[in-house]
Amino acid sequence: MIDDHRWMGAALALGDRGRGRTAPNPNVGCVIVSDGRVVGRGWTQPGGRPHAEAMALAEAGEKARGASVSVTLEPCAHVSPRGPACSDLLQLAGVARVVVALGDPDMRTNGAGIARLRDAGITVEVGVRADEARRAMAGFLARRLLARPQVTLKLALSLDGAMALASGQSVWITGPEARAHAHLERARHEAIVVGRGTFEADAPTLDVRLAGLEARSPRRLLLSRTEADGWTRLAAPADIATLDSVDHVLVEGGPAAAAAFLSADLVDRLLLYRAPILIGGGRTLPDIGLTDLADAHGRWCLIDSRSLGSDRLEVYERVREPAPGERG
Amino acid sequence: MIDDHRWMGAALALGDRGRGRTAPNPNVGCVIVSDGRVVGRGWTQPGGRPHAEAMALAEAGEKARGASVSVTLEPCAHVSPRGPACSDLLQLAGVARVVVALGDPDMRTNGAGIARLRDAGITVEVGVRADEARRAMAGFLARRLLARPQVTLKLALSLDGAMALASGQSVWITGPEARAHAHLERARHEAIVVGRGTFEADAPTLDVRLAGLEARSPRRLLLSRTEADGWTRLAAPADIATLDSVDHVLVEGGPAAAAAFLSADLVDRLLLYRAPILIGGGRTLPDIGLTDLADAHGRWCLIDSRSLGSDRLEVYERVREPAPGERG
Repeated sequence: MIDDHRWMGAALALGDRGRGRTAPNPNVGCVIVSDGRVVGRGWTQPGGRPHAEAMALAEAGEKARGASVSVTLEPCAHVSPRGPACSDLLQLAGVARVVVALGDPDMRTNGAGIARLRDAGITVEVGVRADEARRAMAGFLARRLLARPQVTLKLALSLDGAMALASGQSVWITGPEARAHAHLERARHEAIVVGRGTFEADAPTLDVRLAGLEARSPRRLLLSRTEADGWTRLAAPADIATLDSVDHVLVEGGPAAAAAFLSADLVDRLLLYRAPILIGGGRTLPDIGLTDLADAHGRWCLIDSRSLGSDRLEVYERVREPAPGERG
Repeated sequence: MIDDHRWMGAALALGDRGRGRTAPNPNVGCVIVSDGRVVGRGWTQPGGRPHAEAMALAEAGEKARGASVSVTLEPCAHVSPRGPACSDLLQLAGVARVVVALGDPDMRTNGAGIARLRDAGITVEVGVRADEARRAMAGFLARRLLARPQVTLKLALSLDGAMALASGQSVWITGPEARAHAHLERARHEAIVVGRGTFEADAPTLDVRLAGLEARSPRRLLLSRTEADGWTRLAAPADIATLDSVDHVLVEGGPAAAAAFLSADLVDRLLLYRAPILIGGGRTLPDIGLTDLADAHGRWCLIDSRSLGSDRLEVYERVREPAPGERG
């Protein structure tokens, strides 16, 4: 069990490499272990194929026979024009054991992958580090369960909640470490939204300014009543549901766009970059439709926090009732 | 050295018992250790006498002979009508060694206590856990070095910095654990300030509603242009310098009073109780005179954080240049 936990950690880390690049497929990670040594590693490739298992099996070759496989999502049971079913590939390779973090809610798999493996005499364990896998593939799951991408709202704030001075000055509230982290987050999303105010004021490029990740700059979305060249327009936050091959959306600014997504209850994850400064009288989050404090509670849960230079990053998740059909 | 560190920790914890009750004297703690066992414990008593050393020596009795004493502040060298000098008492008791966290900036002692002990052949170590001692006796030190009490500003905030809804509703932003902690903080201050708005809206009692600490409710100060029965009026934040026997002031609310103290740069310590909620369009910190973001940076340093139920407490300290004459 300790080994299962450890190898699933490696699979989760591999799967994270694909985050923001695999839509509409999930960003899965996979390791194959034989006699306590890794013989194959894989993660879903950009565009969604090959799958993580196929990649890891190709690396392992003959060493996959009798080996143990840790994979963050249930291996697929459906043959597609783009490749064979991973549950078939695993069986053909002769693996002895498959450890799965999370069942696949895709109706074409949805337990059938696990059943097929078990029918072939392969030992299958399900549910190892399921919560982390759910978090790692939140975009894919939001598509399946909520019929829209996962939405992350990024806010860079002073301790008193200001995103800018009253004058509009916001360069810089946070320091270089926090800003570099925010660029890394851009690379983990297929698309970024800004509102009209940020578009007019900053003409943002929204690119990833990190060495080696320049090519990972996401699609640019403008929440606005009017069009702009080179931008995809969203007339309303709910329009994110209509975007092709976008499973992760990052809402970057400004206050009005943040409030629009929060008012629509379309934010799943909050990234708060907090600088140890007080501004006073600054631009804070506008009205989001709250009329009673009691309704504000129980919606957000802190899942991660860390120091970034003198700033703090806090990550919150929206607490939601499990959707019908969701399972561990 | 490890033992010195450990025993000074015990002395600091004892000294903390007096915080908010010993002004104008410092809240000192003292342990006396003989053969690795504590034989005497003391802390400054309400009103400032007896001193911690006198109390610990009284408990130790004959066991103090040859013992080692850990005390958070340099033992006093001055005889007063209220008691003998502690450096004389330690010498008379025949202690072998005295470990001091912090030198006493009081001009009547200011190194003379340490010199007197050394002249008597007692080994003296100075500077063990000095930073913690400085923090523990910040009220006393602010009086000596800044000629005013230490000021703590308490803010209970949503993640977006709101202290209340636009309607004024602020009951409750934080949960019961955070509110109980805030009551404990009241007991650690000689006086609490509220502004006119909070006074009118809440008619606050500002008492300590914690079992066993009811008698520790602090003096009530009203920052206002007009008087109120049972309250001491402050015409301006700087008037805290004129208060007798008040070394720790807690500013509790509301936004205008917070901004008044921040604008005057009279806040030394921030207690941020943060609830995991978003309010949007709420009442946030008003203008504090900041016109350029660059001036906001480098003023506050996070020194402590913890969970209180689902809320987070963060404690920040104002970063100040050492005042002339301040020493470790």
